[in-house]
Amino acid sequence: MSGPTIEFWFSIGSTYTYLTAMRLEEVAKSSGVEVRWRPFSVRAVMIEQKNIPFMGKPVKMAYMWRDIERRAEAYGFPARVPAPYPLTEFDRANRVAIVASEEGWAPAYVRQSYRRWFQEGEEPGLEPNLRSVLAAIGQDPDRALAKASRDAVGRAYLAATDEAKRMNVFGSPSFVVSGEVFWGDDRLDDAIQWAKNVS
Amino acid sequence: MSGPTIEFWFSIGSTYTYLTAMRLEEVAKSSGVEVRWRPFSVRAVMIEQKNIPFMGKPVKMAYMWRDIERRAEAYGFPARVPAPYPLTEFDRANRVAIVASEEGWAPAYVRQSYRRWFQEGEEPGLEPNLRSVLAAIGQDPDRALAKASRDAVGRAYLAATDEAKRMNVFGSPSFVVSGEVFWGDDRLDDAIQWAKNVS
Repeated sequence: MSGPTIEFWFSIGSTYTYLTAMRLEEVAKSSGVEVRWRPFSVRAVMIEQKNIPFMGKPVKMAYMWRDIERRAEAYGFPARVPAPYPLTEFDRANRVAIVASEEGWAPAYVRQSYRRWFQEGEEPGLEPNLRSVLAAIGQDPDRALAKASRDAVGRAYLAATDEAKRMNVFGSPSFVVSGEVFWGDDRLDDAIQWAKNVS
Repeated sequence: MSGPTIEFWFSIGSTYTYLTAMRLEEVAKSSGVEVRWRPFSVRAVMIEQKNIPFMGKPVKMAYMWRDIERRAEAYGFPARVPAPYPLTEFDRANRVAIVASEEGWAPAYVRQSYRRWFQEGEEPGLEPNLRSVLAAIGQDPDRALAKASRDAVGRAYLAATDEAKRMNVFGSPSFVVSGEVFWGDDRLDDAIQWAKNVS
């Protein structure tokens, strides 16, 4: 019997995922919950489901930035908002996340990507930032980027996105525990509690 | 100098507002925060801003019902979901709320409307439920409904909606504290903390 486990479904490119990416490892450790990092294309799911959160909605968009700024401050880290949005190279950033999740360095890659995006204004997936992120976490950029461009990784990315859809995941960040979906950084505590109750 | 105060902007018809309507008075009392109940038409704002949260989005809609069910249970009250949605007589329900807020019985009216909606499946704004709600909270249905149908109340409803837009309120429930907007039942604690810090 394994301990409490959460599947963390995310796309780099989701703004609210910043709040989770910066604290999830620490929260998981302190709460004794194991986390599986599951990159997928929330963009593909949102387009398919006609669920466009902010583009064309300036009032809601402005709120989102302010909300993230306030929440980040409450968590104890800064947020320089608005950050560049939407991402130019969304899929590239997340294909590298697929490689990272296969090889076990997703937490470092995601956190570093988000830190640069929200603290230094550097877009994930764009060069030279992408190579700098990889180097900073001790990964060989040439190797990682070559692998991320392979068809097999593209297929794994699509398969993960299909799996997310089958689980009724429609946004990032989402936490899945025993078939229950919890959407949003503000549901992480609920997901952890659920994981403890069912484990 | 007044104590900490929150403007609670809401529409009867918003599903997540159930979670706030059932507990706001108690939370306000225990935290020593004064609440001004401000009905407006979130439907008008959402149509204008092309911000349609659930209609035509079945996956997100199903999530919303389950999320409300789980959160209600955690708060200690039931939620029979899905409740009838969207409301047939949205404006009528909220014009009565305008009268209620002018006369000081908004909390009782809103809570009773939501209780019947989410616990007994009775749509707010529809007869015979609307009259039953009013009678149950000690209001004369004939008098309240006659007043709610007056042009002056229609104008007050429009004016409140315009005021909400000027404050960048785009969803229900929203909490406004010193120009800061907090959107969603899950931001009530943040709004209370903000109100205490600025008062």
